[in-house]
Amino acid sequence: MMIRIYNAKILTPNGIIDGGELWTEDGKIKLVSQVSPLILLPWDREINANGNLLIPSFKNAHAHSPMVFLRSYADDTALDEWLFKQVFPREAKLTPDDCYWLTKLAILEYLSSGISVASDMYFHLGSIADACVDCGFRNVILEGITDGNKPELYKKLQWGVDNLDGKGGLIEYRLGLHAEYTNSEECIKMLAGFAKENKMPVYTHLCETSKEVNECLQRHGKTPGEYLSDLGLFDHGGVAYHFVHPSEKDIKSLKERGVSVVTCPASNLKLASGIAPIKRLADEGFNVAIGTDGSASNNALDMFREMYLATGLQKGTLGDPTVVSGESVLDMATVNGAKAMGLRGLAGLEIGQDADIVMLDLRQPNMQPLNNIVKNIVYAGSKSNVLMTIVAGKILYEKGEYNVGEDADKIYSECQRIADRILEK
Amino acid sequence: MMIRIYNAKILTPNGIIDGGELWTEDGKIKLVSQVSPLILLPWDREINANGNLLIPSFKNAHAHSPMVFLRSYADDTALDEWLFKQVFPREAKLTPDDCYWLTKLAILEYLSSGISVASDMYFHLGSIADACVDCGFRNVILEGITDGNKPELYKKLQWGVDNLDGKGGLIEYRLGLHAEYTNSEECIKMLAGFAKENKMPVYTHLCETSKEVNECLQRHGKTPGEYLSDLGLFDHGGVAYHFVHPSEKDIKSLKERGVSVVTCPASNLKLASGIAPIKRLADEGFNVAIGTDGSASNNALDMFREMYLATGLQKGTLGDPTVVSGESVLDMATVNGAKAMGLRGLAGLEIGQDADIVMLDLRQPNMQPLNNIVKNIVYAGSKSNVLMTIVAGKILYEKGEYNVGEDADKIYSECQRIADRILEK
Repeated sequence: MMIRIYNAKILTPNGIIDGGELWTEDGKIKLVSQVSPLILLPWDREINANGNLLIPSFKNAHAHSPMVFLRSYADDTALDEWLFKQVFPREAKLTPDDCYWLTKLAILEYLSSGISVASDMYFHLGSIADACVDCGFRNVILEGITDGNKPELYKKLQWGVDNLDGKGGLIEYRLGLHAEYTNSEECIKMLAGFAKENKMPVYTHLCETSKEVNECLQRHGKTPGEYLSDLGLFDHGGVAYHFVHPSEKDIKSLKERGVSVVTCPASNLKLASGIAPIKRLADEGFNVAIGTDGSASNNALDMFREMYLATGLQKGTLGDPTVVSGESVLDMATVNGAKAMGLRGLAGLEIGQDADIVMLDLRQPNMQPLNNIVKNIVYAGSKSNVLMTIVAGKILYEKGEYNVGEDADKIYSECQRIADRILEK
Repeated sequence: MMIRIYNAKILTPNGIIDGGELWTEDGKIKLVSQVSPLILLPWDREINANGNLLIPSFKNAHAHSPMVFLRSYADDTALDEWLFKQVFPREAKLTPDDCYWLTKLAILEYLSSGISVASDMYFHLGSIADACVDCGFRNVILEGITDGNKPELYKKLQWGVDNLDGKGGLIEYRLGLHAEYTNSEECIKMLAGFAKENKMPVYTHLCETSKEVNECLQRHGKTPGEYLSDLGLFDHGGVAYHFVHPSEKDIKSLKERGVSVVTCPASNLKLASGIAPIKRLADEGFNVAIGTDGSASNNALDMFREMYLATGLQKGTLGDPTVVSGESVLDMATVNGAKAMGLRGLAGLEIGQDADIVMLDLRQPNMQPLNNIVKNIVYAGSKSNVLMTIVAGKILYEKGEYNVGEDADKIYSECQRIADRILEK
């Protein structure tokens, strides 16, 4: 597959090129240039961008894609009621086939919002991987280990490494601990051991609520980040999801180990978990990325909303409109996400990088006038500006139409059927 | 103009009709019905909604439309620098013709987000009104009075009443005080007198920042709401914009006078002004509506973002995910907005009401599955779901295309020219 996009503004790591040209070949970026080379190649598609903007795709660094079936089902309810009465018992009814279809629905939404890769912590991972590969979508996938039979869990991890990592050139497998509070010390040690043997980072929900932090202090005399670090869980790095209530000790432990932080501002806000101190964390040198979390808690899988919240909530709660600039937020939603997920080929629109590219429509009123394009994206942008989403060199979304090997209406009806069955409507 | 929309879900004040039909004639809703009457009429348009959803249009209850020229110009800067060095000196350069074109750009954005009416506090009101009438868009317009020559200001108000109120059947004129802190007591008394003579409500920025409140206390020994109420400004009602830092006295004074509150959550967040206590205010019985504010501070004019923030910020800061339900937020963005603006014909999709209607695409992934349509709109909805915006019975926006008597590209280029001139780029 070879694509030529010309007459484009291109957001490169070195600034915006105007009237530029970008080529892709076999899933990689082959050329980014201000001038149009006088070469004719056997293009599969030649696209006149009409002066619109190419940016690196968004990276959704924390997701639970199959949770789309719970969208808008248990909103406006208290957290414990929400989690234990509404979410957990319903999730337990999901079959692998359910997860396959629900992941496809999430993928449609990701694509429409310019996201080319998600990192799913869930179960039935084989089905999630299949859905992604069938659609052409990337996923950095992990089981959220919860306490259980150790040899079985160990086997599950080994199965993931053997069968999911590298699948279809689109899937990467990582290690995941659901959370400190859902695991025994034995299980955490087993996972830390597996991580050490395989030199793998571990991804986990961490310091999401103050309740979690306080209970860990009571149980172990340590904060969650300190406790898990001391058990060696992050000896090969890792990712802390949410990280809303870190103590100084959590910050110190994780910083020393090069752990990334994934903030999920919409989810934290709607579930009243709090506001993660990402301005402080970024100042400390953490790699801060952004995730949508699942659509039971968010409920949209929309990076534009997350970006506005990521900066707005810092400005609002710190009382300082200068903190967390638009430019830094766009980095969080793109290159920082790739870094958190350990994806080496997604560092921006440069020759040799993976061709995960989004075209944004600048000819919509919310992007006018063009005083500052990056700030326009972060402060005024919307998924309605996404004209095209390219993943690994394939155009999967274009002007409202999906090219994922399956009709969108078929995906909607399958998912409605699943929701109706599980929610007993 | 007669329009027939059939095969639609219709959100009425009494719940959602499925497979319903809605007719408009001469700008009014003529029929809302679950069954399709067997009548043939000389329709100008017959529209198959394909099962998509009709809702009342959004009402933007506080705006400064011409400020679009400043979008993304002075972001990430401190408030005083922003207001006094960037905003005020640039606004002073605006001509009436500038305001005409800039208002048109804002109207495009409103329409694309399902907004059918804005309430603009600005200057060069004649140009703003002309832009609205030329596009077919509604505006409840007011001069933000700042201290000056009293007879001149009085004349200006009378001119608004005589020339703007009722213009084109789309414009209504109201009285506006910019703020307590930008006016002398003489001017406020003059405006209160004018309001009393004409039995008109007064709209004003109120308790937006804690600085404003503290300075008023020092100056007058009263909080802004108390001070203005005591001067008789709200004797015929009114609207308080922002109302982020009200004291008990402000709440009492305004409640007694039936003053509505317009919250602008995105603007308050980005400018770090704080978070308005709208849960408390709604509990007290205030009519709470939503405004985008101007696009220098927001920067989008997008009611979907405002709705999510309106509830999310209350949930997040009160630590309670049950407060400010999705249903109540949709009311804030629609019927409450009409009430705040004093628009009697916009109480919802019912026979006899004004035909300000939005069609939302439910066949997009963020609206699937259809577990709860209203919560889907508030928690997962996006302007990308807006298929059609009807204002006063005319389709002004349909699937990305505008029908406002002017080419969108022409409006963009005029506004870019204005921005480049004023911002000296």
